[in-house]
Amino acid sequence: MWKYGNALPVANSSAIVSLNEGNTPLLKARLYPRCEVFLKNETVNPTGSHKDRALSIGITKALEFGFDTCMLYSDGSAALSSAAYAARAGIRNITLAPAGTPESRLLPLMIYDSIVLEYQGSGAEALAWVHEACQSLGIYETTTYRRANPYESEGPKTISYEIAEDLGRVPDWVVVPVGGGGTLSGIWRGFVELKQRGVTTKLPRMAGVLPAGYRLLELGMQQGAANNDDLRQLGGFEAPESAQAKIAMTFPPDGLEAIAAIRDSGGLFLYASDAEALAAQQRLGAREGIYAEVSATAPLVAIDQLIGMGLVEKEQQTVAIISGSGFRETGELGRSLAVKKNAISQSTGIADLKRLLHL
Amino acid sequence: MWKYGNALPVANSSAIVSLNEGNTPLLKARLYPRCEVFLKNETVNPTGSHKDRALSIGITKALEFGFDTCMLYSDGSAALSSAAYAARAGIRNITLAPAGTPESRLLPLMIYDSIVLEYQGSGAEALAWVHEACQSLGIYETTTYRRANPYESEGPKTISYEIAEDLGRVPDWVVVPVGGGGTLSGIWRGFVELKQRGVTTKLPRMAGVLPAGYRLLELGMQQGAANNDDLRQLGGFEAPESAQAKIAMTFPPDGLEAIAAIRDSGGLFLYASDAEALAAQQRLGAREGIYAEVSATAPLVAIDQLIGMGLVEKEQQTVAIISGSGFRETGELGRSLAVKKNAISQSTGIADLKRLLHL
Repeated sequence: MWKYGNALPVANSSAIVSLNEGNTPLLKARLYPRCEVFLKNETVNPTGSHKDRALSIGITKALEFGFDTCMLYSDGSAALSSAAYAARAGIRNITLAPAGTPESRLLPLMIYDSIVLEYQGSGAEALAWVHEACQSLGIYETTTYRRANPYESEGPKTISYEIAEDLGRVPDWVVVPVGGGGTLSGIWRGFVELKQRGVTTKLPRMAGVLPAGYRLLELGMQQGAANNDDLRQLGGFEAPESAQAKIAMTFPPDGLEAIAAIRDSGGLFLYASDAEALAAQQRLGAREGIYAEVSATAPLVAIDQLIGMGLVEKEQQTVAIISGSGFRETGELGRSLAVKKNAISQSTGIADLKRLLHL
Repeated sequence: MWKYGNALPVANSSAIVSLNEGNTPLLKARLYPRCEVFLKNETVNPTGSHKDRALSIGITKALEFGFDTCMLYSDGSAALSSAAYAARAGIRNITLAPAGTPESRLLPLMIYDSIVLEYQGSGAEALAWVHEACQSLGIYETTTYRRANPYESEGPKTISYEIAEDLGRVPDWVVVPVGGGGTLSGIWRGFVELKQRGVTTKLPRMAGVLPAGYRLLELGMQQGAANNDDLRQLGGFEAPESAQAKIAMTFPPDGLEAIAAIRDSGGLFLYASDAEALAAQQRLGAREGIYAEVSATAPLVAIDQLIGMGLVEKEQQTVAIISGSGFRETGELGRSLAVKKNAISQSTGIADLKRLLHL
């Protein structure tokens, strides 16, 4: 992605901390033969998600500023990225994860030699705690939302640049999973900047997809929330538990920017139930050959809805951001999926096999 | 990798089944500041290993020949690749896995909608069984060794092409994990062909690394085994259980070609104990930011040995093939590694944190 380095907030291009993140495939989807749907396959990034773009910038800045330790709050993709890029840079990484994070998500952090702290308390509390601790101790904060780290927020712009370059145009729709809100708003900003620079002439409509029940941002948009306090006052309802762990955030820290991107682009928020997202995960694997984490397959559910609403026309181009790899979550896959297998041996004949395979 | 399509055995370049495999990063290793060691990071392929190169070719050929079903014997990387590329091509995939394969390795095959058969019996028996079943039933065999599928064997050549292009020269050493032997011999063939075509003038020395105790190929080389029967007669000894599952093969089906590559290149076979490979896995994560499966970190152990033997000189270039991602094996990581974590909460003060972090 560093071929777009001019558009990224880095002073010295020879001191970049990189594992060759970005430059990911844009694959024509077989799942929608009647539409022009493309899959931006972010699962092939070095730690398996688009967060590597953000952390390549973030850890580069940490070195630029002279820090020797970084810390973030995350139980997911950003935690892996921060740990991996800190390792590559030779600085110390501290992950603050919510209590109860599955072992299978923490084990890779041990390989990257991250310190792991488990936070007993709400996500909002943890974000405040880690922010204060970083300030007090002179630790570089790598939590991926704008107020914590404005440089990392520029990472998703490179997704837009790559899409525009690969398609040779700006798509009509870009469909993005919304957790904290920063990925969607960063991608939107990327397209806005391309237009401002005269590289392109149009802008896409943005669709943000969240787990069913996570309606805070839509409420905020409808009621014209002007700041985070406004948004917080709308948040009194209970958001359900969700298998779409990485986008099930009760208070998205970059939510206001995501609302602005949806509003300014003429887009909308859409919702995926767990059952829909799990079915989409299976469809994406079985038809496209991509194993994505369940949160990253929600865009397919949203595209079905856009098509159902008549909002995507035949000649239009839609890009789904497949943000993270499923291989990082196989440990949790067993809850929703069983292995079907048949035992055979040397004595299993061809006739037996034919019967087994219904040939 | 299909920019090298001219060198690959495919008739119609518009009918290629691809997920944008290959074109993987070649990273300068921080672990060896005094030598020029590079890491060929194959973990970022679509299903997390270099086998995607082989199967992109294999499944393309399956379509070219008009097959609608493919089958292979594998419990590891090739199984994922075959299932993913078959899904992308819209044909049926059957995986024959050894009985006792961990669930965490089979679950992703369910996502790719592969049929899974578990074979009760030895690997050699299973290879024979699957070969015969494919012949009898008109199923395309995608097992990745030369006799089963000669097209797939051309995949590793593209690793050599990329290395030569990225370095601007041929390295002095290429260090490759050896399971079936086809990856090492394919990479060697790639360099030989570059020389034959006049693109390069020199050849690398090849080092093959196996789990400690897996000395069949070295014995075969020493005793001049001329065919697989010769090799089989040397194989009476017991090879130990190994955590390096993907390269712990008692009878490598492409072993003779691997022997030839080592001999012709003036190379050697080297060995990694499980303890050494696990330590290398940790080192690779903690210092380079790459989470590789333990089998794929054995090349670091071999490089240490080459340096210790005085076989790698300062100005020489060595490339380690990091063949597969660790994210696919996190389920097994828990056996060798525990998560170290400290509990904190809102009441944990800065002084407590300083103590915890030994600041």
